[in-house]
Formats: sequence, C-alpha cells, structure tokens
Amino acid sequence: MSNIPKSTKMGKYVVIEEGVRIGENVVIGHNTVILTGTKIGNNVEIGSNCVLGIQPSSHKKMRKINQNYNQLVIENNTRIGNMVSIYLGTLISENVFIGDHASIRENVLVEEGTVIGRAAIVELNSKIGKYCTIQTLVYVTGDTVIEDNVFIGPCVSMSNDKYMGAKEYNLIGPHIKKCSKIGNNATLLPGIRIGKDAVIGAGTVVTKDVCENETVVGIYGKPIKKG
Amino acid sequence: MSNIPKSTKMGKYVVIEEGVRIGENVVIGHNTVILTGTKIGNNVEIGSNCVLGIQPSSHKKMRKINQNYNQLVIENNTRIGNMVSIYLGTLISENVFIGDHASIRENVLVEEGTVIGRAAIVELNSKIGKYCTIQTLVYVTGDTVIEDNVFIGPCVSMSNDKYMGAKEYNLIGPHIKKCSKIGNNATLLPGIRIGKDAVIGAGTVVTKDVCENETVVGIYGKPIKKG
Amino acid sequence: MSNIPKSTKMGKYVVIEEGVRIGENVVIGHNTVILTGTKIGNNVEIGSNCVLGIQPSSHKKMRKINQNYNQLVIENNTRIGNMVSIYLGTLISENVFIGDHASIRENVLVEEGTVIGRAAIVELNSKIGKYCTIQTLVYVTGDTVIEDNVFIGPCVSMSNDKYMGAKEYNLIGPHIKKCSKIGNNATLLPGIRIGKDAVIGAGTVVTKDVCENETVVGIYGKPIKKG
Repeated sequence: MSNIPKSTKMGKYVVIEEGVRIGENVVIGHNTVILTGTKIGNNVEIGSNCVLGIQPSSHKKMRKINQNYNQLVIENNTRIGNMVSIYLGTLISENVFIGDHASIRENVLVEEGTVIGRAAIVELNSKIGKYCTIQTLVYVTGDTVIEDNVFIGPCVSMSNDKYMGAKEYNLIGPHIKKCSKIGNNATLLPGIRIGKDAVIGAGTVVTKDVCENETVVGIYGKPIKKG
Repeated sequence: MSNIPKSTKMGKYVVIEEGVRIGENVVIGHNTVILTGTKIGNNVEIGSNCVLGIQPSSHKKMRKINQNYNQLVIENNTRIGNMVSIYLGTLISENVFIGDHASIRENVLVEEGTVIGRAAIVELNSKIGKYCTIQTLVYVTGDTVIEDNVFIGPCVSMSNDKYMGAKEYNLIGPHIKKCSKIGNNATLLPGIRIGKDAVIGAGTVVTKDVCENETVVGIYGKPIKKG
Repeated sequence: MSNIPKSTKMGKYVVIEEGVRIGENVVIGHNTVILTGTKIGNNVEIGSNCVLGIQPSSHKKMRKINQNYNQLVIENNTRIGNMVSIYLGTLISENVFIGDHASIRENVLVEEGTVIGRAAIVELNSKIGKYCTIQTLVYVTGDTVIEDNVFIGPCVSMSNDKYMGAKEYNLIGPHIKKCSKIGNNATLLPGIRIGKDAVIGAGTVVTKDVCENETVVGIYGKPIKKG
C-alpha cells in the first residue's frame, strides 16, 4: 500500500496502487484510479473518475513503443479535471490545468502554467511549452513541438504521417513556434513549421510552412500579411 | 447523507454527496458520482461512470469565472448517457437526451426535448433552445446562443475569441437562429450570426454572418441560394 | 453472479452483472463496468473505468432504434483501453485495439486486426473491415462501410443525413473501399463512395464520389491524379 499523507482529501472508491507517491494537501476525486509509478506533488487537485499512470501498450498496426516508462510526475499546484487519462513516462509541470475528458500519452512534457483543454488529446513524444493555451478538443499528434505562449483554438487537428501508414517513414509532427496562434478547426499537415508570432485563420488547411509574423487563411493557407 | 427515495434504482459504487435531491423512479448507473448541489427530477435515467454537479474551477490563463454556482438541475424524463460530466449552475430541462462522454459546463441552459450528442461539449454561459439536435463531437463554445429546432451536424466547431487570447475582449459566441442547419465539420468564427432557416454546407468555414434562408458552402461560406 | 474464471486478473470496484461470460486470462481494470450480455474471449485486456454492454436507448428526435440486441462479443486477444464505452449488438473481433475514451455503438462489426483510435466514435449499423487504422477522434457515422486495410487519419468527420433532419430519408453513411487513405480532418458528405486505393488529402471536403486510385485535395475534393 502506498503511503498517503494525512493531508490528502480522498474521495470514495479511489484506487491507489502500490508505489504511488502523494505530496501534501492533495485532493483526489471519487472513483479515481492512480496506478503504480505515479508521483503527485503538493496542492494538486484531481477530479473524479480519472485514470493516471497508464502503462503504454501496442499493436501490430501501430508503431513500436517504449514500454519501459515507469513514472508519471504531476508537479505542485496542478489541477486535473474529471475523467482524465495520463500515461507513464510523462511530466506535467507546476500550475498546469488539464480539462475534463483530456488524454495525455507517454513521453510527453507539459511545461508550467499551460492549459490543456477539455477532451484535448496529446499523443506520445510531444512537448508543450510554458503558458500555452491548448483549447477544447485539440488533437496534438505524436512528435509535436509547441513552444511557449502558443494559442491553439478548439478542434485544431494535426498529423505526423505523410504516407498515412503506407511506407516506413520517420513520423514528424508540427513544430509550432513561440507566441503563434492557430484558429479553431485548422488542419496542420505532417512536419509543418509555424513561425514565431504567426497567425493561422480558423478552418485553414496548412499545407506548407508559415513564416514568422505571417498571417495565413483559406484552403491552402494563403498568406494575407507578412511581418 | 442525502435522502434517496425507495424508487431509485441504484448501481454499485455510486457516490451521492450531501445535499443531493433525487425524484421518483430515477435510475443511476454503476460508479456514477453525484456531487453536492445536484437536483434530479422524476424518471431521470443516468448511465454509469458519470460525474454530475462539478464545481467550476479556473486558472490564470483562463477567464475569471463565477464560482458561486450551487445547483445543477436535471428535470423530469431526461436521459443522461455514460461517462457524462455536467457542472453546477446549469439547467437541463425535461425530455433532454445527453449522449455518452458529453460534457456540459456551468451556467448553461438546455431547453426541453433537445438532444446533445455523444462526446459533444457545451462550454459555459451558453443557451440551447428546444428540440435541437446537437450531434456527436460538436463543440459549442462559451457564450453561444442556439435557438429552437436547430440542427448541428457532427464535429461542427465554434469559437468566441477573435483575438485568440491576445487582447482584452468580450468573448462572443455564435448566435444560431431558429430552424437553421449546419453541416458536419463546419467552422464558425467568433460572433457569427446565422439567420433563421439558413443552411450551412458540410466543411464550410463561416467567416461572415449568414442571412435568413440563405444556403452557404465552401471555404468562405459563399452563398448559393438566397431566400 | 457471473462465473468468473480463476485466471481473471480483476481490478478493484469492478462491476460484473449477471450473465456476463469471461474467457481465460482476461485482465479487467479498476472501476470497469461489464453489463449483462457481454461475452469476453480469452486473453482480452480491458482498462479502467470502461462501460461495456450498454443497452441502446432512444429519443423522439432520434431515429427509432432496435432495442432487442442482447449480446456484445469481444473476441480473443483484443485490447480495450480506459474509459471506453461499447454497446450491445456489436462484435469486436480478434486482435483488435481500441484506444482510451473511444465509443462504439450497437450493431457494429469491427473485424480482426483493426485499430480504433483514442476518442474515436463509431455509430450504429457500421462495419469496419480487417487491418484498418481508424485514428484518434475520427467520427464514423451510422450506416458506414469501411473495407479492409483502410487508413483514416485523425479527426476525419463523416455524415449520413443529406437533409439534416428535415425530411424522411434513408440514412446512408460513406462507403470506403479497400486500401484507401483519408487525411486528417477531412469531411465526408452523406453516401460518398471512396474507391479502392484512393487518397484524400488532409482537410479535404469530399462532396462527390472518388474513383479507384484517384487522389483528391482541396475544398471540393479536386482530383490531382487519376490511376
């Protein structure tokens, strides 16, 4: 049995597996499951019906994955909503906010002060910088880099596989630079680079790289302003 | 402990916090969590693994929210699926149907006879009229008004922040008038008004207001018919 | 009480209703709910907080549904993630992988070796062939046929109702033929047929049928190559 501090405010039917570490003044909602390898900082709040510390698993149709991750770290003052799933091998930094129904996979770094929206999904091997806003239902594909202070509007979709499973290929997600902003339901193709302070209009399909300060809109991401 | 009528059909490992009120002939699925302040009418059916009556919470990167809501009301004959989350400060009227994995935030009104689809998300301060169909995976942003008898196809995305977090700005969601229809995966920009009986084609990016009876399609919502 | 083999590795607070059948060497995560009529094969792994074997339910605004389904079958060696919901009347074949937060409705067939991504949704009366990859957040509408070896990228949206609820109409989902590939966030209109080995670019709105070997991109699915 894990060692649970007296300051923990624990819901009913919570499951805490062996080897979980819990800081001071942690709140854990009802029916939440915290699996082996999870380490929770001080003043963390976790909603009901979450599953934290999931062991990655694989399938022949999916790429080979590293199953040797053994720790999920959630740092101080972070807040996790209800029905959230987070994998082992991931670090959620301080003062992060993760919305209800969100899912974050293995080998992900979410830096301090960032918001991950409701039902947003972050795939494996991705890195999200400081003070970003990743809104509701955003899909962050695997192998994505999002720098600091980026804003990603609701329902933005990304991809990392140019050949859609047809060839051996190094998967490359988008690289989204500092302070850029992406409008809702935009589509980013694999490996797209979005420059610092760039703005992508809502519904844009981004088929090529976007320069620093550039604003693009429309089906091929036609530029309308250049910095 | 809340006062639970004998007519309640209660699953296993259900959590019902203090101060919950439950009507007659209510069904509550296994592992469902009903938090303080929730008031459930007669003949309501609730699936398994739901969390109802969530207290809003906030973060520096998010707008200030009202944390004084203290009641979630679910009226008679409404049906709530599995793994649904609903916040305090919200009223779900009679004969509403809420699909599995859906999430509805605080200060929302869903009027009678409306369907909220599977995994659809309704953000704060929104109002959805009577007899609407809000299909699967629709994203209803904050501050949205949807009038009666509206049809919103699957995966439609809305936004309410013109400056994407860059400026102080009064967030304005879309206003979607009576009997209009929006095709799947359409994108609505902030503050867009869609007229009565208008039709928006699937995949359309709606960048300006749409008139009564107008049908628009394509990337800028080009009109093809005017009433 | 159901007859649970000794080889079952069972989490805490699991609910298994009457009449559930469980094969050998099955793993069931914490807080998972398995409802009456579910039949689980050998070596199946199920995550935490799932709900399996859901009875379909309906609403006046929704089409009439068959409520006589009484069995959900999950065949050998299949793996089901966390917080997954699956309905009665459905068959999940051998060696299938179903991601976290996914939802699969009644009268669905998922054939062997297929991957259903995280938070993907498969509506009623759909058939998904062998060795398909249906990625994260894909929306498979009702009455869809997906043949073998199809690749569907993240956030692809489909629809089946040409009149958006306005007329009596036989709902027809897309028919997606063998080995075709659909890029992320593409939009498919009702009844669209996509030919064998066709490729649909990311973000494309597919408004008419696509021929065998054809590659289409852009707002109306303009062909750029014909086989």
